[in-house]
Amino acid sequence: MTITAAVSGASGYAGGEVLRLLANHPEIEIGAITAHSSAGSRLGELQPHLLSLADRTITETNPENLAGHDVVFLALPHGASAAVAAQLPEDTLVIDAGADHRLEDPEAWFRFYSSEHAGTWPYGLPELMLDGGHRQREKLLGARRIAVPGCYPTSALLALVPGFAAGLLEPRDVVIVSASGTSGAGKSAKPHLLGSEVMGSMSPYGVGGGHRHTPEIEQGLSNAAGESVTISFTPTLAPMSRGILTTATARVKPGVDKAALRAAWSDAYGDEEFIHVLPEGQWPATQMVLGSNNAAIQLAFDEHAGRVIVSSVIDNLTKGTAGGAVQSMNIALGLPEGAGLAQLGVAP
Amino acid sequence: MTITAAVSGASGYAGGEVLRLLANHPEIEIGAITAHSSAGSRLGELQPHLLSLADRTITETNPENLAGHDVVFLALPHGASAAVAAQLPEDTLVIDAGADHRLEDPEAWFRFYSSEHAGTWPYGLPELMLDGGHRQREKLLGARRIAVPGCYPTSALLALVPGFAAGLLEPRDVVIVSASGTSGAGKSAKPHLLGSEVMGSMSPYGVGGGHRHTPEIEQGLSNAAGESVTISFTPTLAPMSRGILTTATARVKPGVDKAALRAAWSDAYGDEEFIHVLPEGQWPATQMVLGSNNAAIQLAFDEHAGRVIVSSVIDNLTKGTAGGAVQSMNIALGLPEGAGLAQLGVAP
Amino acid sequence: MTITAAVSGASGYAGGEVLRLLANHPEIEIGAITAHSSAGSRLGELQPHLLSLADRTITETNPENLAGHDVVFLALPHGASAAVAAQLPEDTLVIDAGADHRLEDPEAWFRFYSSEHAGTWPYGLPELMLDGGHRQREKLLGARRIAVPGCYPTSALLALVPGFAAGLLEPRDVVIVSASGTSGAGKSAKPHLLGSEVMGSMSPYGVGGGHRHTPEIEQGLSNAAGESVTISFTPTLAPMSRGILTTATARVKPGVDKAALRAAWSDAYGDEEFIHVLPEGQWPATQMVLGSNNAAIQLAFDEHAGRVIVSSVIDNLTKGTAGGAVQSMNIALGLPEGAGLAQLGVAP
Amino acid sequence: MTITAAVSGASGYAGGEVLRLLANHPEIEIGAITAHSSAGSRLGELQPHLLSLADRTITETNPENLAGHDVVFLALPHGASAAVAAQLPEDTLVIDAGADHRLEDPEAWFRFYSSEHAGTWPYGLPELMLDGGHRQREKLLGARRIAVPGCYPTSALLALVPGFAAGLLEPRDVVIVSASGTSGAGKSAKPHLLGSEVMGSMSPYGVGGGHRHTPEIEQGLSNAAGESVTISFTPTLAPMSRGILTTATARVKPGVDKAALRAAWSDAYGDEEFIHVLPEGQWPATQMVLGSNNAAIQLAFDEHAGRVIVSSVIDNLTKGTAGGAVQSMNIALGLPEGAGLAQLGVAP
Repeated sequence: MTITAAVSGASGYAGGEVLRLLANHPEIEIGAITAHSSAGSRLGELQPHLLSLADRTITETNPENLAGHDVVFLALPHGASAAVAAQLPEDTLVIDAGADHRLEDPEAWFRFYSSEHAGTWPYGLPELMLDGGHRQREKLLGARRIAVPGCYPTSALLALVPGFAAGLLEPRDVVIVSASGTSGAGKSAKPHLLGSEVMGSMSPYGVGGGHRHTPEIEQGLSNAAGESVTISFTPTLAPMSRGILTTATARVKPGVDKAALRAAWSDAYGDEEFIHVLPEGQWPATQMVLGSNNAAIQLAFDEHAGRVIVSSVIDNLTKGTAGGAVQSMNIALGLPEGAGLAQLGVAP
Repeated sequence: MTITAAVSGASGYAGGEVLRLLANHPEIEIGAITAHSSAGSRLGELQPHLLSLADRTITETNPENLAGHDVVFLALPHGASAAVAAQLPEDTLVIDAGADHRLEDPEAWFRFYSSEHAGTWPYGLPELMLDGGHRQREKLLGARRIAVPGCYPTSALLALVPGFAAGLLEPRDVVIVSASGTSGAGKSAKPHLLGSEVMGSMSPYGVGGGHRHTPEIEQGLSNAAGESVTISFTPTLAPMSRGILTTATARVKPGVDKAALRAAWSDAYGDEEFIHVLPEGQWPATQMVLGSNNAAIQLAFDEHAGRVIVSSVIDNLTKGTAGGAVQSMNIALGLPEGAGLAQLGVAP
Repeated sequence: MTITAAVSGASGYAGGEVLRLLANHPEIEIGAITAHSSAGSRLGELQPHLLSLADRTITETNPENLAGHDVVFLALPHGASAAVAAQLPEDTLVIDAGADHRLEDPEAWFRFYSSEHAGTWPYGLPELMLDGGHRQREKLLGARRIAVPGCYPTSALLALVPGFAAGLLEPRDVVIVSASGTSGAGKSAKPHLLGSEVMGSMSPYGVGGGHRHTPEIEQGLSNAAGESVTISFTPTLAPMSRGILTTATARVKPGVDKAALRAAWSDAYGDEEFIHVLPEGQWPATQMVLGSNNAAIQLAFDEHAGRVIVSSVIDNLTKGTAGGAVQSMNIALGLPEGAGLAQLGVAP
Repeated sequence: MTITAAVSGASGYAGGEVLRLLANHPEIEIGAITAHSSAGSRLGELQPHLLSLADRTITETNPENLAGHDVVFLALPHGASAAVAAQLPEDTLVIDAGADHRLEDPEAWFRFYSSEHAGTWPYGLPELMLDGGHRQREKLLGARRIAVPGCYPTSALLALVPGFAAGLLEPRDVVIVSASGTSGAGKSAKPHLLGSEVMGSMSPYGVGGGHRHTPEIEQGLSNAAGESVTISFTPTLAPMSRGILTTATARVKPGVDKAALRAAWSDAYGDEEFIHVLPEGQWPATQMVLGSNNAAIQLAFDEHAGRVIVSSVIDNLTKGTAGGAVQSMNIALGLPEGAGLAQLGVAP
């Protein structure tokens, strides 16, 4: 039996990537393709790379157009998902690529998003380690509402959770610096995102704890650590379209050595299809994972500074958004977890 | 029954891309992965993006290691293929991604490659138009030796052949200017290919008719035209890893109008899975086809200059090399022509 | 005695580059800095790289603010210059970086710009060859109105004029393909100019004779040739912020050989400070001229195709806009022609 | 009286940038241009952007060729400077752009460079704050041996020294993550520095405390703090030719507030010509300083994490190498400190 999926927010980068992955998915048939201001357009005008879907017409994002599908992907601006989801049947699998249902703490939501909290949905990061050897994927089995993690949190949590889950890291003075491709900033035309401005240039933004992904990262690390973890998170914009390189560093607890650190990360991801801890001496590069659902991770113990430094790379639009969404969908529907997802990046 | 494929030249960009595509191919099992100076290495050291194949060992490129496979891909330096192929069984499908067996004219070979001509194999560009409505794919059915076209010839022939095949274009003053990503120049470390040199910079090379793809393009255009076609071809290096944008322009014959031109191109590619003539007004961009086997094409008639201008884009490593190779393999083996090949580019 | 200069359109890329050059100019004091919608802002908000001018306030572009300066630079949208210039004293040197006063033929203006022609001012390309061994710089001596050439015409005319002026080239089937950095498309935020769209991608635009620089290039070539020259011009957008690489090719007249071609170009530019014909075998790259007022040129004779191919590179914002403007100003005011202009590009 | 300068290591990126700046310097005449393996070549072959110097011949780097100049710049591989300097007269100003004479601690030198320490020369970072309101520039007055700081140390020290000098920061858990353009890795052709590998990709290297600039940064911070400072430093390679963005973060001491932090940085650089603390709310981008001798800095106080985050940008080849060298030369010779140095970056 064919599974049908609707994609809303189809004119943006997240929506486009969901469509790219679904078009390659062996079990999914793409149904409604919806958006707001571009409703009525040919998809090919807005997503010229989706050549085999170019003649599909974008319809309006509303419950009528989204209803009747087995799965609905919401790639909408923050704050818009809850209202749409409320009008969809409870047995429809609704996957929110936006931020609305990620945070557990309504106060943190209000502080960073200045609106009412829409509630918390199961978090779509299957590899996340939970207490007692459990993984987040168990919570996604059969789920009908899923909140896809933010792209920075995906890269930061994959980088640091093994150390916190194993009790090896101090919960203070955790520092995370990430470099993201510009697609993470979306497709709306702003002067500082022009090619002329970003090519050949690196710049920080949201410095000082103000970026909205900060509480989401702290939530995930605190859950893994079993205590409150505080981070300093600085995102930067890199001259590339896709990819996130996260440099995450934390103080190790007394007595922790290099072997214990390597073991924690190897054990965490040894059985994971998409998370690759590289052989010692090899460092990740964002190019390695372009267009794939992979994360590549390496770590080093700096004895002098008493800190572990973890580097992780993902494609922000794939594993960081649409790939995580499709992987979570696969789990929720009982499909093979990797269906429709590339295991090899497009490089060079 | 599983089909096995060996890939030689696996440390280079072409070999890496063949491996990436074969790993996604539903009918192929990757056998020997061979190279020369890097024999003995883990594949992951040389092709870090091929994460699921990282632990495979590269073996020496020799007949013993290549024998016993149904298909052998040769991604070797020019001049090296013939000797290897001669030692492989006649019923092994040998696909040469190098130049050795592309040219029909031994003299042209000698003039551009300064070595003895190795003979001509069926040309692996299935969409190429031949006399009487035939296509090149017919010559690939059941073939056991295939010469993959060069990347520039793929983009230039797809751009101009419809006009020559339809008798609409003059055979003189054909001008082709192509911009290629740097992966087309290979993986050997040369100072002018350093990132510091190529980023933010455009430069020409092989100007004045000296580029080795010139006779290959003329051969294909002349075959289509039924008369000798002369071109001026200038390749340029663009600050991107992948992709070719070809701007091809030719004088139209007296009386030819815009409708005739559009009809020729639409008719040529209307049934082709991978070749997309865009709707009027939309122009191709190399990003549209990144990592896919697609070509996207648009044309305009400049009445003032009496010329047609055709823009075509491909991914030089996919449709321009490894994708063309796999597509040709599929045809030769009677598999679905698009098996293992992406129909959607990775964008943005 | 200090010379004062006002710069209008100071919020855009052309205006910013004029300011960058004037700040380095030993004889000029920057007076009013004006714009339209950003009047009232600190310059540092709009041109963050102009650090030493950051605290200057942008004022409204109007005759009151521009009056009282020795020189006024107009870096305004097409069609806006004439009205402003008409309100400035006749003895003020007005330098228009826009297109309004470049074309000699009112009909060509109307066809490409759909408005009334504003008249023709002396063309600010000092190195342009005229009849009888004269140069365009002679027409700029003491001028009080100057039209700065377009960036593509600067690169195309510098590339081809020597051959036409020497009577070596045929006036038909001239083909020009240029690759430009994105700053040539200006600073207004359009989706197709986002970094995510342009990085890693080449694309054509204005194909088929529709680009507004076409009649300007034909005008310059025809003047040099003494007969009407017809071109096919295709601009493309390259993934870099600055720079133009022009590939220009024309059929040579019967009997013309390589020596005659090289002599024509060497003679044309041997005494020019900013135009460098490279030694044989060395090809230009846009990086060579970044931020400088230089053009670098190389040519090859393709005997097989009977054509000369000329490659030229400039920085579109410097020699192609603001540098040409300042160089022309220097000539008009009797200053050293190279004052304030870099002779060395910023590379790598 | 003209001052003559010789430049050794003229074939590399640092040497090329020294030449670019000296050619623009009003008081300096460029004498010998020397290198090792490329001795005998035209400079234009190796540094094609230095068009006005293209016909100069590169001579061998040896004492005979370097002697007789007022200033000698050494842009040599690490370990090569001491031997050359020892053969130059004591009253020649020798400026070492390499690492040999930067470190004060011979043991740190040995640990990171595995060779004998060559001694310590005055450190060429004029803006560095010393005890009692003094600056490093005082130590450069009349100096005849100067060690130019490393590019990462320049950006990191400019970022953090004001806080340490003012006693506001804790000496542990200082974390510095820097993104550098590829020119920082030099011009020797290594596969991982190919354009195909670096474009569209971010990657870390030297992770875990192993990068040679680590002890140099700790030395500068410790001197400013008056106590031993320990850092975690992670360099990353960004897809751009030039520029360093440093994100530096440290825990603030109890009771320190935002006003105290801003005052420390404003006071530190308020009188500095090349160091710009941006207005609150504006963040630096490497493009702002391209080709200039500027640094741009911004800071934020993250109360939640109890840390200050400082962003600094420089051009690694200009302020980070050759600009710092020329600025130091100016001071040593009693010339205006900014002679020959651009105060405005080339943007966009």
